[in-house]
Amino acid sequence: MSSALSQQEPNPQLIWDTINAYQRTSALGAAIELDLFTAIGPEDVTAEHLANKCAASTRGIRILCDYLTVLGFLRKHAAAYCLTPTSSAFLDRRSPACMGSMVQFLNSPKLLAGFANMTETIRRGGTTLSHGGVNEPELNEWVLFAQSMMPLMKPASEFLAEEATRGNQPLHRVLDIAAGHGLFGIAVAQRASGAEIVAMDWPNVLNVEEGNAKSAGIADRYHLLAGDAFAVPFGAGYDLVLLTGFLHHFDEHACVTLLKKINACLNDGGRLLTLEFIPDEDRISPPIAATFSMLMLGLTPAGDAYTMKQHERMLREAGFTKSEMKQVPQSPQQLLVSTK
Amino acid sequence: MSSALSQQEPNPQLIWDTINAYQRTSALGAAIELDLFTAIGPEDVTAEHLANKCAASTRGIRILCDYLTVLGFLRKHAAAYCLTPTSSAFLDRRSPACMGSMVQFLNSPKLLAGFANMTETIRRGGTTLSHGGVNEPELNEWVLFAQSMMPLMKPASEFLAEEATRGNQPLHRVLDIAAGHGLFGIAVAQRASGAEIVAMDWPNVLNVEEGNAKSAGIADRYHLLAGDAFAVPFGAGYDLVLLTGFLHHFDEHACVTLLKKINACLNDGGRLLTLEFIPDEDRISPPIAATFSMLMLGLTPAGDAYTMKQHERMLREAGFTKSEMKQVPQSPQQLLVSTK
Repeated sequence: MSSALSQQEPNPQLIWDTINAYQRTSALGAAIELDLFTAIGPEDVTAEHLANKCAASTRGIRILCDYLTVLGFLRKHAAAYCLTPTSSAFLDRRSPACMGSMVQFLNSPKLLAGFANMTETIRRGGTTLSHGGVNEPELNEWVLFAQSMMPLMKPASEFLAEEATRGNQPLHRVLDIAAGHGLFGIAVAQRASGAEIVAMDWPNVLNVEEGNAKSAGIADRYHLLAGDAFAVPFGAGYDLVLLTGFLHHFDEHACVTLLKKINACLNDGGRLLTLEFIPDEDRISPPIAATFSMLMLGLTPAGDAYTMKQHERMLREAGFTKSEMKQVPQSPQQLLVSTK
Repeated sequence: MSSALSQQEPNPQLIWDTINAYQRTSALGAAIELDLFTAIGPEDVTAEHLANKCAASTRGIRILCDYLTVLGFLRKHAAAYCLTPTSSAFLDRRSPACMGSMVQFLNSPKLLAGFANMTETIRRGGTTLSHGGVNEPELNEWVLFAQSMMPLMKPASEFLAEEATRGNQPLHRVLDIAAGHGLFGIAVAQRASGAEIVAMDWPNVLNVEEGNAKSAGIADRYHLLAGDAFAVPFGAGYDLVLLTGFLHHFDEHACVTLLKKINACLNDGGRLLTLEFIPDEDRISPPIAATFSMLMLGLTPAGDAYTMKQHERMLREAGFTKSEMKQVPQSPQQLLVSTK
């Protein structure tokens, strides 16, 4: 919608739009829950027809569809709505790339609660949620994460697995830290037939990884390690460690502590693959990586989206000799390849 | 931020951005509550300096300011932030046009609650709030509205008063329905020295109008009428009726009922000035008027943003002979001038 607003300044429309932005979240969440995008599918459909298909009121559907059209999720011709390339690819459940499920985690009551008292959060400089917010041990929301965030991670997991197996370096033992859905370690296992994967996570989440490893047919090479990444012994002799979407939950000191522990469990020449939202050094671009810090401010005591310079400093301090940054295609995340 | 997103489709960034849009609301609300924009003022200020001025943490302020920069409310040069023309004009409390106060109403717990269960709202086609949502008699939020929404209405009130007094038509009696802050009737009274204003509203709100009329020096010509617009007798002999931001709360049948009652209280040749969010007939443009229907879906049983054709039909049915639409400068609202 912002792009449709007048760009002339001063512009009170930006203020109106931002004050009411919470309605965007509510509207898209409702559309996904009503499975509106699947109900539209490849057709041009009227509000009356959609109301019938979604078991909802015509008035509600009409207002929702007009709203989603303004936002860019639908197109409208006369009184009929159709999908855009974006909603067709990512919000119609028939699409293999459908990622609608991620609202279950990203808009879960716990995450929304992290932004309910933002003034106090900014005053104190960290989450107002109890027990460290999303860093609370064995948090149920990580099960939701593991169950619902896979589609968003799919392109990144394929890119990561390709990078991990590049050049036919031997991969015998792979550690996947805070494995979540397990997608990253599983993708590596599928490409490296000799690799044993150790998937580490909170015990409540490991059921999800285990189920996904079975579905992928690599359960015999998939081993579970339950616990806290900072406390549980990793063992030794790893050729590769995967650290995906993890460092941003902690302050730099904690990150270095963990990176040292990772360095110690790697064989000489072993590699660490770190997947992260990495803003430019100006911290205001690109938009998704730059605004990821806000998510960490609301949800963690001291997490952040670190720049490349910050990552390099932390990795060097932990004993990694070189690090290279690679843009993950079709993803706002970057992959850091570091060598012991 | 949308404008900074890649415009290429398919584009999962739009989905990520919309799912997380609620954070925009939280961040701007916190910035206004911390009086961040006033603290920046005409200077280039670092996060450290601002943290000190706003009695907040440096980390919280730095992440907030980077986020507001991505959204377009600030600019960043090296490590210092400065206001944009928009935030300088409308969010710095030293500016006479400052409208930061409107978060108090627009993000009040009651309004936010109207979007907490959007799926059910769309299923039933009306608010899930009890007692008719914001149409509940003597709702406290209308006091908040009257106290906090004046700055947004200022340009519209001047335009309306100019229109009301155009051509030196005699203005003896003016009825201001659901007067709220009273700004519209007061602006007319200030330009038409012979006009007596009858300000109608819920009794709990009328204190605000009365105070503002006193401040404006027109209290001796300002009369209060407490009650429900659909039930309280208006009296008769009006030259002008003001109906600002009111029709959108009700369905078309109720609107016609009220418009007939208004028509009946007007002198022959008397005028009705209706200020409304009026979307184009396609209902998907311009963005603010088009998305206003979503606000009414969340907050009322059957309200809507009506198009010009719908307004014309309702006004004709109520006995008005002609209606003309005028775009209010610096406002997303339109003014309808109708004659009995």
